[in-house]
Amino acid sequence: MEPQMDTAALGAFLVAEFPQVAEDFGIEALTPDGIEVRLKVAHRHLRPGGTVSGPAMFALADVAVYLALLAQIGPVALAVTTNSSMDFLRKPAAGADLIGRARMLKVGRSLAVGDVLIFAEGGADPVARATLTYSIPPRR
Amino acid sequence: MEPQMDTAALGAFLVAEFPQVAEDFGIEALTPDGIEVRLKVAHRHLRPGGTVSGPAMFALADVAVYLALLAQIGPVALAVTTNSSMDFLRKPAAGADLIGRARMLKVGRSLAVGDVLIFAEGGADPVARATLTYSIPPRR
Amino acid sequence: MEPQMDTAALGAFLVAEFPQVAEDFGIEALTPDGIEVRLKVAHRHLRPGGTVSGPAMFALADVAVYLALLAQIGPVALAVTTNSSMDFLRKPAAGADLIGRARMLKVGRSLAVGDVLIFAEGGADPVARATLTYSIPPRR
Amino acid sequence: MEPQMDTAALGAFLVAEFPQVAEDFGIEALTPDGIEVRLKVAHRHLRPGGTVSGPAMFALADVAVYLALLAQIGPVALAVTTNSSMDFLRKPAAGADLIGRARMLKVGRSLAVGDVLIFAEGGADPVARATLTYSIPPRR
Repeated sequence: MEPQMDTAALGAFLVAEFPQVAEDFGIEALTPDGIEVRLKVAHRHLRPGGTVSGPAMFALADVAVYLALLAQIGPVALAVTTNSSMDFLRKPAAGADLIGRARMLKVGRSLAVGDVLIFAEGGADPVARATLTYSIPPRR
Repeated sequence: MEPQMDTAALGAFLVAEFPQVAEDFGIEALTPDGIEVRLKVAHRHLRPGGTVSGPAMFALADVAVYLALLAQIGPVALAVTTNSSMDFLRKPAAGADLIGRARMLKVGRSLAVGDVLIFAEGGADPVARATLTYSIPPRR
Repeated sequence: MEPQMDTAALGAFLVAEFPQVAEDFGIEALTPDGIEVRLKVAHRHLRPGGTVSGPAMFALADVAVYLALLAQIGPVALAVTTNSSMDFLRKPAAGADLIGRARMLKVGRSLAVGDVLIFAEGGADPVARATLTYSIPPRR
Repeated sequence: MEPQMDTAALGAFLVAEFPQVAEDFGIEALTPDGIEVRLKVAHRHLRPGGTVSGPAMFALADVAVYLALLAQIGPVALAVTTNSSMDFLRKPAAGADLIGRARMLKVGRSLAVGDVLIFAEGGADPVARATLTYSIPPRR
């Protein structure tokens, strides 16, 4: 499927629609079947011991799959997260950004499903995985 | 099972161990099989339109079940979230705090599982549900 | 919400629509917010050691929440399972039927979500829990 | 990681340990990071309309990830499923076997996590995905 938005358009959408969190994330690249998104890890994302918090990883997973979806369907749809499952696999190394690699598994008329693997930058093994479902409102 | 910590002890634990997020949450009550935790909804938790963000609801779910677990096993254990599943059921009303009602379904030797229903304060229908699993390190 | 089907109508629906598995299940009771369904545990549901297999417990969870949904919306809709999460909490005692207690958390226009606790008959602690999502086709 | 069991050893294990379901499955191939397992779709796996039932797809997911795990750790461990999440993406074509492609994401000391994509044989798009967690008992 031909992407409907490029990284610049996706980045501009993030700033316009999610101004409170846009600075946390960077769009690394569109891939043949998805997207790579960076969480710029800052003090507010950490737990004592230097681990990135669960909610911060959840936020990265949600943003990455959401952008992978918008890349395919364009910015018109107001998709809403309806379901998520997430596994926390390893403690991420302190001091490294996190990279989420998301892909869409289904983009249907009313439901879309994608999953994401999260890596500490430079790490070979995933620190987390997640699957997210979005409800897509009827097109006008 | 007799609780090992009361609301004051749980609140003090939250402030000591999670100083970055402790002010977001309030412990409402210990219940016979769990706990009620409040998310004091502030501007930083919102998405455009006034909805509470998914990551903020995830954070409430995680804190509520974690505190329900600590209430049973005490503050000694360093439990780590290993898995979560979450369903977003309804858009929470703007301007209301969220209340998470968590209970433990299993507290085993090495794994604990609990679930939580999240309500907008004063609302009758849940806005989200989640189940979380924690890995409990071996007792010394 | 007033139930649209009683236990007799739900049982007849099960036999008519799912003849291959209907004999595995019994509808125990409609409850104020859901339903109780029995898995009549037979040799084919067991794993070596006498434990009920995961797929058999999954089947009970799916049937129980599906019937809880039909009790509310009636037999017209052809709902399809789109998502499930399930936690296996304890090894069920050998020789006991399993009882699933299901309730609906949301019955929306196009999506319905319910959860279920599964007990070995006579047991106090749940052996499994699950949440299932169904996609409801547009009403004609 | 070097596989500890080849397809013949895994097949023999399946027959010895799961005699009631072994004939449902065939081990297609070990892959660099996992395994391919076939569900030989028979009448008992179908729902009216010819669709493969949810519990049959769950069984394939569970067996595929379980065998991917055993391929890495060998047949000694008695691993138990503790958690699953599953998304049903498309209605599988009638008359086709299902192929599950499983890989391990983590094989830890006490927990292992793997995921699986399920395809109708010859189909390009996945009909389902699942993630499963296993608890690995302490080695003697």
